Amino acid sequence: MTHPYRSHTCGALSAAEVGQTVRLSGWVHRKRDHGGVLFVDLRDHYGITQVVTDSDSPALAILDSLRAESVVTIEGTVKARSEGTVNPNLSTGQIEVYARVATVLGKAEELPMPVAGEQEYPEDIRLKYRFLDLRRETLHANIVKRTQIIRDMRRRMEDTGFTEYSTPILTASSPEGARDFLVPSRIHAGKFYALPQAPQQYKQLLMVAGFDRYFQIAPCFRDEDPRADRLPGEFYQLDLEMSFVTQEEVWETMEPVLRATFAEFAGDKPVTPAGEFRRIPHAQAMLDYGSDKPDLRNPLLIKDVTEHFVESGFGIFAGIVANGGKIRAIPAPGAGAGSRKFFDDMNVWARGEGYSGLGYINIKDGVPGGPIAKNHGEEKTAALIAALGLGPNDGVFFAAGKEEQAAKLAGLARTRVGEQLDLIDKDRFELCWIVDFPFYEWDEDNKKVDFAHNPFSMPQGGMDALENQDPLTIKAYQYDLVCNGFEIASGSIRNQSPELMVKAFEMTGLTQQDVEERFGGLYRAFQYGAPPHGGMAAGVDRIVMLLCGAQNLREITLFPMNQRAEDLLMNAPSPAEPKQLRELHLRVVEPVKQAAPAKAAE
Amino acid sequence: MTHPYRSHTCGALSAAEVGQTVRLSGWVHRKRDHGGVLFVDLRDHYGITQVVTDSDSPALAILDSLRAESVVTIEGTVKARSEGTVNPNLSTGQIEVYARVATVLGKAEELPMPVAGEQEYPEDIRLKYRFLDLRRETLHANIVKRTQIIRDMRRRMEDTGFTEYSTPILTASSPEGARDFLVPSRIHAGKFYALPQAPQQYKQLLMVAGFDRYFQIAPCFRDEDPRADRLPGEFYQLDLEMSFVTQEEVWETMEPVLRATFAEFAGDKPVTPAGEFRRIPHAQAMLDYGSDKPDLRNPLLIKDVTEHFVESGFGIFAGIVANGGKIRAIPAPGAGAGSRKFFDDMNVWARGEGYSGLGYINIKDGVPGGPIAKNHGEEKTAALIAALGLGPNDGVFFAAGKEEQAAKLAGLARTRVGEQLDLIDKDRFELCWIVDFPFYEWDEDNKKVDFAHNPFSMPQGGMDALENQDPLTIKAYQYDLVCNGFEIASGSIRNQSPELMVKAFEMTGLTQQDVEERFGGLYRAFQYGAPPHGGMAAGVDRIVMLLCGAQNLREITLFPMNQRAEDLLMNAPSPAEPKQLRELHLRVVEPVKQAAPAKAAE
Repeated sequence: MTHPYRSHTCGALSAAEVGQTVRLSGWVHRKRDHGGVLFVDLRDHYGITQVVTDSDSPALAILDSLRAESVVTIEGTVKARSEGTVNPNLSTGQIEVYARVATVLGKAEELPMPVAGEQEYPEDIRLKYRFLDLRRETLHANIVKRTQIIRDMRRRMEDTGFTEYSTPILTASSPEGARDFLVPSRIHAGKFYALPQAPQQYKQLLMVAGFDRYFQIAPCFRDEDPRADRLPGEFYQLDLEMSFVTQEEVWETMEPVLRATFAEFAGDKPVTPAGEFRRIPHAQAMLDYGSDKPDLRNPLLIKDVTEHFVESGFGIFAGIVANGGKIRAIPAPGAGAGSRKFFDDMNVWARGEGYSGLGYINIKDGVPGGPIAKNHGEEKTAALIAALGLGPNDGVFFAAGKEEQAAKLAGLARTRVGEQLDLIDKDRFELCWIVDFPFYEWDEDNKKVDFAHNPFSMPQGGMDALENQDPLTIKAYQYDLVCNGFEIASGSIRNQSPELMVKAFEMTGLTQQDVEERFGGLYRAFQYGAPPHGGMAAGVDRIVMLLCGAQNLREITLFPMNQRAEDLLMNAPSPAEPKQLRELHLRVVEPVKQAAPAKAAE
Repeated sequence: MTHPYRSHTCGALSAAEVGQTVRLSGWVHRKRDHGGVLFVDLRDHYGITQVVTDSDSPALAILDSLRAESVVTIEGTVKARSEGTVNPNLSTGQIEVYARVATVLGKAEELPMPVAGEQEYPEDIRLKYRFLDLRRETLHANIVKRTQIIRDMRRRMEDTGFTEYSTPILTASSPEGARDFLVPSRIHAGKFYALPQAPQQYKQLLMVAGFDRYFQIAPCFRDEDPRADRLPGEFYQLDLEMSFVTQEEVWETMEPVLRATFAEFAGDKPVTPAGEFRRIPHAQAMLDYGSDKPDLRNPLLIKDVTEHFVESGFGIFAGIVANGGKIRAIPAPGAGAGSRKFFDDMNVWARGEGYSGLGYINIKDGVPGGPIAKNHGEEKTAALIAALGLGPNDGVFFAAGKEEQAAKLAGLARTRVGEQLDLIDKDRFELCWIVDFPFYEWDEDNKKVDFAHNPFSMPQGGMDALENQDPLTIKAYQYDLVCNGFEIASGSIRNQSPELMVKAFEMTGLTQQDVEERFGGLYRAFQYGAPPHGGMAAGVDRIVMLLCGAQNLREITLFPMNQRAEDLLMNAPSPAEPKQLRELHLRVVEPVKQAAPAKAAE
């Protein structure tokens, strides 16, 4: 035993080592004094071992004096636990170590938050003392699982013929998309680098440079206001690109990779098999699920019942339909048998979401109830119920309005009904592709056509479509991967033709010169032999959250910032030295003082 | 053959496919017109295939019209090449494909630089058209090899029980070390994040948080002026840290990992076996090699001959010795038989390096020549020659001066003599550890003791040494890994005791309050149970350069900036929009105009 700190880790000892003299190092997890016999749970990254000392051992006084979370080396003899004290939940639960020697390596002061146990603690304390927080069981395990998931993805990508290339982090500001983080240049006064929002242009340049299958676990940066599902600062993507591919080949390549990673870390939960991911056109998804990220675990399907309300006796719906609006029906199986309150509460909820309300019919023992049934007319109501296939004690909600609004409310109601009626099987992972996204959308603010998603995507139909088709009907070779209601990846086949690129941007009001100025590198590259290419990017953080069952990004992130974009552990951001500002040719402009108490600017 | 672009890659076809109809896609690498028969070398990431068309094929006109580097899909029949035309240098050299169909996927304009061939091109063109440059054979292969080396390192680290954790990229400015890149905060006016110079503090925090074996292929950022061996902006480290370790355990853990990666990519070149890396104390290295990064392929050893020149007849050396200086001897085996010009040229070279000169003795047929031998005295010269073990036609150089100067000049002379006499076996990789670096050094500018290297290292002898020893004699548990004269890694056992940390900084003139302000996160962490820990960081770029035999970082980097820290491909850095500056609470201060032509500021 020549190692000064340990012969074994705290997770290694079993009945096989009984009788051996061992050395262990770790943190004092818990201490229990049983009248002169001191039990210490000694913890390290690998596990916990029970250490015992009594008054015969010089270690007693030392261990007795230590606060929890102190670091200590102990030396002693492995003994089998008596039958009643074996702990089957612990890998080392069959043994305990009788310590004769204890050496303190790192004392702990009084703790600002406990490590043992899983009680809730205020976020500011957790982030300031993140090194303690990270010792806690669930968070420690989540972080380890995160690294395992990333490692698994990486190996599967490599085994699928992809090569990982790191693209630059100090790069150019991208004039499209979200807000960039800027990095002032010292050498070039008044000029700035930007941190990449995604390696989009670089990965396309890699394809033009002849690298065939690229991937990267890529750090990405967006200076957006923090949200519950978005940490300030950086996030990670599994980013990939392939040359000479169709979108079908992207899907067929990535389904086995992502499915396998899910299956590996899903425990017992079933995962949609590779090759069986449904490919749902965007328009269909908006109709059936009222969402482009449908949760397929929810069995409810929305139906369009607009035709039923043409000249209906229920005047509100009839009016909406007459004005070109849509009526969407969301079934609520079995809900008719229950309380009317359920239906009224849904209506109140919909108003709370900013909609004018959610109509309904509640069928009880075959009798349709509620104002819609009453006014719609008996025969028409019966026809509607038959068309929806509703049973004698089912209910149904109606979302009405302009198509987009009706679809969205129907989608939200579908989710809520599914939850309230407990129809969603939480213990599965349902994966599907949403395909054929619209290429353009109408920008109401600027009264012009704009890109609906990625401006670098290839429009279906190519130049012919751009020249001859209503732009709002053009679809893109663009797709999302959705799991349990979350978008976990997004991708497209790219537009690699310089003429088509210019034309696509011209439709949004930009000129060839604008394209050359804003995307010069890529535009130039497309002049010199660009292969067809496409790919996607998957959100690593979101996938880890799903697989850890975590509700918050902070529970799967090592050193997150708080909601005010501050790193409380390292004290960032912080003022720069005057010398630094001089070197960077910058002066700070103090924001105008407000009467209100200081809050985040903007 | 349903895939629209390819049934095979351009590196896949062999005699086994003769007779098959295939589809290939790639770039037109070279075209040769042999009187109505057109040969096209079609290239993709995987290889080159010879495509043939003649006037019977409709593909002829299409391929004939294309410029080199256009992207094309061809369809045709695989035929065996006739015996005389088989190309053994090409994986597809046994076959050629007779094309009947050709479809242009991406036309190439007139090229600003050729892709086929390896001629030199001006750097600005190469960087602006990096997507073309990257198609060239050597650079393309270097980049692929780089990814393979990183993948190999990563897998070996994982297989050695290390886990990869990504540490934050938007973090706090570190007041020690090199210059930080700053990132202005939008939410907190006048405050800045910094990009990490290295994940040093985070990896130590990970150890305090109880993660045992960390590693990361870590992007690091230093805003330093560009140098030949340093690209502007970012670079990569294989960064690692271990808990409950001694420095010997770090060495024993990492030798097999790094040795295996070297061996994997070294081709036929021998690599020092794991377990046989010499561990050379820093002081010894300065004596024997005049350098803390010795090239062990150079067989020459420096000797201290100061004692020989006490009261020597060679007055200059006698004077230096009398003033406490040192005389170091660098043998030049066999050089005495050659021209005296070699010795005089070395002297001129030394003056060119800023030294006062390099003395020598050239022994020809047993007779020592030159001014030193003449003045030193016959007997003493004979004794000196005997002590150095010189033969009858050897030479020897002498570096004289203050110890540090003499050692440094001796080291440079050792390298030069080795090169000039062709004593260095270029075809091996010699790895060694330099250990026991001094903890402090004398800061002549500020007339105070300062850290020689890493302030977070553990001083040998601990508190006792700090309190009772001449600080300039204290050694650190600090080490470098050196290969062929290059430092490729650096590390240490860390100082994890808060008291020792404060004391170590106090010796350099800082107070406890300074430590708390500058390294608050780490200092705080050490209060709550810190394990002994240590690690190292290896320079990925340098290792890749060595293994690719590349002389310049640009030859192993995907999208490097130029020497003025500009990305010519993406046009970075660039001016920010006024809106962006407003949001960041910044104003650009134009540098004072100089009469001299505009140059990089600072």
